[in-house]
Amino acid sequence: MTEQTPGHSGSEMMEYARRLFPICRSLTGDGVRETLRIIKEICGDLEVYEVPTGTKVFDWEIPEEWNIRDAYIIDPDGKKIADFKENNLHVMGYSEPVDKTLSLDELKEHLYTQVDLPDAVPYVTSYYKKRWGFCISENTRASLKEGVYRVFIDSDFKQGHLTYGELLISGKSKKEILISTYVCHPSMANNEVSGPVLAAFLGNCIRSLHNRRYSYRIVFLPETIGAITYLSKNFEYMKENTIAGFVLSCVGDNRAYSHIQSPYGDTLADKILSNVLSFIDHGHMVYSFLERGSDERQYCAPNINLPVCCFCRSKFGEYPEYHTDQDNLELISEEGFEGAFNVMRDCIEALEHNNYYKVTCFCEPQLGKRGLYPTLSKKGSATAVKAMTDFIAYADGTNDLVDISNIINVPVAELIPIIKTLKTAGLIKRVK
Amino acid sequence: MTEQTPGHSGSEMMEYARRLFPICRSLTGDGVRETLRIIKEICGDLEVYEVPTGTKVFDWEIPEEWNIRDAYIIDPDGKKIADFKENNLHVMGYSEPVDKTLSLDELKEHLYTQVDLPDAVPYVTSYYKKRWGFCISENTRASLKEGVYRVFIDSDFKQGHLTYGELLISGKSKKEILISTYVCHPSMANNEVSGPVLAAFLGNCIRSLHNRRYSYRIVFLPETIGAITYLSKNFEYMKENTIAGFVLSCVGDNRAYSHIQSPYGDTLADKILSNVLSFIDHGHMVYSFLERGSDERQYCAPNINLPVCCFCRSKFGEYPEYHTDQDNLELISEEGFEGAFNVMRDCIEALEHNNYYKVTCFCEPQLGKRGLYPTLSKKGSATAVKAMTDFIAYADGTNDLVDISNIINVPVAELIPIIKTLKTAGLIKRVK
Amino acid sequence: MTEQTPGHSGSEMMEYARRLFPICRSLTGDGVRETLRIIKEICGDLEVYEVPTGTKVFDWEIPEEWNIRDAYIIDPDGKKIADFKENNLHVMGYSEPVDKTLSLDELKEHLYTQVDLPDAVPYVTSYYKKRWGFCISENTRASLKEGVYRVFIDSDFKQGHLTYGELLISGKSKKEILISTYVCHPSMANNEVSGPVLAAFLGNCIRSLHNRRYSYRIVFLPETIGAITYLSKNFEYMKENTIAGFVLSCVGDNRAYSHIQSPYGDTLADKILSNVLSFIDHGHMVYSFLERGSDERQYCAPNINLPVCCFCRSKFGEYPEYHTDQDNLELISEEGFEGAFNVMRDCIEALEHNNYYKVTCFCEPQLGKRGLYPTLSKKGSATAVKAMTDFIAYADGTNDLVDISNIINVPVAELIPIIKTLKTAGLIKRVK
Repeated sequence: MTEQTPGHSGSEMMEYARRLFPICRSLTGDGVRETLRIIKEICGDLEVYEVPTGTKVFDWEIPEEWNIRDAYIIDPDGKKIADFKENNLHVMGYSEPVDKTLSLDELKEHLYTQVDLPDAVPYVTSYYKKRWGFCISENTRASLKEGVYRVFIDSDFKQGHLTYGELLISGKSKKEILISTYVCHPSMANNEVSGPVLAAFLGNCIRSLHNRRYSYRIVFLPETIGAITYLSKNFEYMKENTIAGFVLSCVGDNRAYSHIQSPYGDTLADKILSNVLSFIDHGHMVYSFLERGSDERQYCAPNINLPVCCFCRSKFGEYPEYHTDQDNLELISEEGFEGAFNVMRDCIEALEHNNYYKVTCFCEPQLGKRGLYPTLSKKGSATAVKAMTDFIAYADGTNDLVDISNIINVPVAELIPIIKTLKTAGLIKRVK
Repeated sequence: MTEQTPGHSGSEMMEYARRLFPICRSLTGDGVRETLRIIKEICGDLEVYEVPTGTKVFDWEIPEEWNIRDAYIIDPDGKKIADFKENNLHVMGYSEPVDKTLSLDELKEHLYTQVDLPDAVPYVTSYYKKRWGFCISENTRASLKEGVYRVFIDSDFKQGHLTYGELLISGKSKKEILISTYVCHPSMANNEVSGPVLAAFLGNCIRSLHNRRYSYRIVFLPETIGAITYLSKNFEYMKENTIAGFVLSCVGDNRAYSHIQSPYGDTLADKILSNVLSFIDHGHMVYSFLERGSDERQYCAPNINLPVCCFCRSKFGEYPEYHTDQDNLELISEEGFEGAFNVMRDCIEALEHNNYYKVTCFCEPQLGKRGLYPTLSKKGSATAVKAMTDFIAYADGTNDLVDISNIINVPVAELIPIIKTLKTAGLIKRVK
Repeated sequence: MTEQTPGHSGSEMMEYARRLFPICRSLTGDGVRETLRIIKEICGDLEVYEVPTGTKVFDWEIPEEWNIRDAYIIDPDGKKIADFKENNLHVMGYSEPVDKTLSLDELKEHLYTQVDLPDAVPYVTSYYKKRWGFCISENTRASLKEGVYRVFIDSDFKQGHLTYGELLISGKSKKEILISTYVCHPSMANNEVSGPVLAAFLGNCIRSLHNRRYSYRIVFLPETIGAITYLSKNFEYMKENTIAGFVLSCVGDNRAYSHIQSPYGDTLADKILSNVLSFIDHGHMVYSFLERGSDERQYCAPNINLPVCCFCRSKFGEYPEYHTDQDNLELISEEGFEGAFNVMRDCIEALEHNNYYKVTCFCEPQLGKRGLYPTLSKKGSATAVKAMTDFIAYADGTNDLVDISNIINVPVAELIPIIKTLKTAGLIKRVK
């Protein structure tokens, strides 16, 4: 995996982010389908599923499919404002169709703004109660003058489908790693075209893994209802086989690295992500499950209880542009994507190599006779091989590779070649 | 319990404190009996027990009963000082009778003062070795002049009884909560008329509990020998049935909240008290068992090992007026009593509701269709129901209610109505 | 053991340190034999073992025996420098013999200095690759002028032996305590004539122990290869019987107390040393096994895994004079030795008494009737007997003596007489 050219990936990821950005996605509808078509361009082999409206999924039910073609407001001067074609955030998600004139006061009951960010157009939805509404900046709203307004939303609901994509990559073992991201947000960049793009590129990376040990399940879902739908169909198999999972969200900006823990922060996924982040960004953010917000809510729900945590760059809800039109393509970058890609690649590499090792000999091995230790002993001469001798000191069969990495404070990526050397020398063997 | 009017209780508790304050209590004697008569006025149903002098109680033996009617010193000018009738602390507890004249030097061997608080009359006892003595302020002692003094103590010892009170309130279960306080201190207010008064009012509160789950054992004892006596008679039953217990001492002032832990700080009583105090006073004092001092010493002794901790406002030994006549009615207050009452009431409420709950559905339930979740999704809209969603996230059958309260940082009192709502909706069930 | 006169020991230890200091020790050779002869003067009964060159010891092999008689450089002015007879550090350990002339540039390839300590002669060895070399100060090296130099090393290698000493002191139990130190360093004082001297005096102290419970195994070995050799011969017995062990190194200076933990810091040896040091020097240094460096590397290696930690005053590698000729007799002192002796003596005393105790009575015992508690109760009167009452509070059969010492913050040495008193009074018994 180290032959990967990160710069190349970063620019490719940004390119796909730019293509996906303008699409109007929602829980259901053609925007999701178009998004999955582009994802499939990246990683191929994506299976797309359609689940009919009205299907019961655990405590929930698939809603009607919503599609929208146009929407705007005509102000008293005849000027078009809140134009959906300019910015699809202007329409509240799942707005019912409307075409009428009304007064400013009547209009205001259907306007949504974000007071603390007066220039921004907020992202608002009403999935499960029929409403219509427009989202505009607080500044625009304040400038509206009295008069007759026309509102027009050309949307429709139908007995359609909820659409999601699934990429399965099999390994030697049925045991599998879950990567989950979502495809239901309209034109916002970090949250969330970054997650689907990263997940698709990770799919390619995983497929190229030599001697892949685990199987991988990468899913592109509408958030919440999509994850619930997916679990309702796949839970039993996933419960038996999932050893670790990662929800990817907000993985395109370059400001922070964040780990949202599983309910008790004690799963293999937490352990791996925590280890990898500790070497990449010692001051990375750690959030408890109380700060959850994406599909880890479903994967970690009491009766589901899969070993899943969530990885972000700047966490959803924690950066000012979150859920507004300021979460745009300027916010994400090649560097942001590459940083996230490297974290997830290191996590996968750590998972693939995370075995228990045990030294084969009694006492320290004589590394010198194998050319692995300096023959001259003077102050400081042992530091050059400290990672190796420390690895040996803790390769007692009770620690997995990540445990040892944590104990001796050396990244897994540096230990993998050491393990190879020691195995070749017959000095360690894999146990368990 | 929330219909309780705390203000009313506070003033009532102060009223009883004022009545109990002047009585000369000791390990044994009529002062204890009179105190229990007044306690019985508050909470009725109090059973009073008399255990004869000489009875063996574990490693101890009930001492002779001590009563006192009068005591004073006549100074060389004929002035009465250290008058028992003015302040019963002036006589060392369990002083033998005396009536003689002596020189100042001879007198000084029987005078006790507290040098670091020169205005205060200290509280001193000699229960198990016959002595006589007077307690006066250091300033008074320093002002004594040479001459002939007369000392007079009209006390007596007899083969009598040790007296204690017991209030049993039965619940659905034989499993019980212990509340223990002591009635052997003469005229000091926080330490200790506050404990018996609070315990008696808690008795009333408990009796009014609808659908009371646990049984309650509230005891009013002479400290140490009384607790030992009580345990020698009731230990086996208590060992089998006590799930938590609280020693109440110094619960009338309004300066601090204190938790003296059981030996390992790990009992259900510790857990409950710690949880309740963390929400009432985040900076409350926590003392290890090394700082013990009241009857937790007996309840937590190695072969007794009951799940008991101690609750104080300002802990005994930690406030300057402790064990002097400055621990008077000025030190305690309605607010002090009410604060303590609320803590213990919340502890009882938490104990009564402390079950394990488990969500019934897979994934998150759809709260919106039940009117329990906002139908409009915009930034921040989920915070209104965060206590409920967080409760659900941890209602996985492995945490009791107090565990969940600790994890999600919401007081038990706020979770109880949420539990009711969720049970009514069929979304959680009790397990274990 | 308290009748020990520490001052006397300190001066005796320094006297032996002065005798041992000048000897040229190495992994093998007559310097080790001479050192063990002097050690035997201290503690008698030392068995000396010789293991032939070429013997396989686990992953290693005993090297040829090396002896040296003389070595020096003649500079272009005919002046003798780097004279082995003045300072045996001038010759790299295990240098092969040489006698030739060469240019300054050629010479420099065989010179070793320590740049960060330009006045010091460093200690350098090349045990497992044949080389010759001289160690001089950086200042001397910088002052060398062009010209013809003669180098002379009168050393030899032979099929000889590796030599080590073993002192076994039997106790009532076959279970034993290991004390290990090393005898392969030439003229350096703290590191390492201090370890062998201290170990020998501890042997005397242990032999004088009345009613010795455990057996003791004290070994004087060449570092690394000596410990490996010793383990290859004694491992099975030691594995079955060793309950705790201590590597002694750098125990003669008076600047710090250091504890190098076993791999997980959780052995009985760690627990005892940590307890003792916490009372002697609350700010003592604690190093993880990542900072290991002496024979704890072998005793704690994965397949050996003996319960051993390492004790130092100033830890090897952490003080500036380490591994140079500045680690001389000025660096160590009577006070340094005595401090180290007291720590190890306290550790042994703690181990010998480290039982589980349980109170025999219910509730607190009445100490007053046994003269163990003040009969007069006033503020503060219980503090005089607090160590005893705290011991009783935790003598519940679940804590060993060191656990109780840690919990109640009283040194084991103060608890031993309390235990005796309580046993005599029948108030505690030993359990387990």
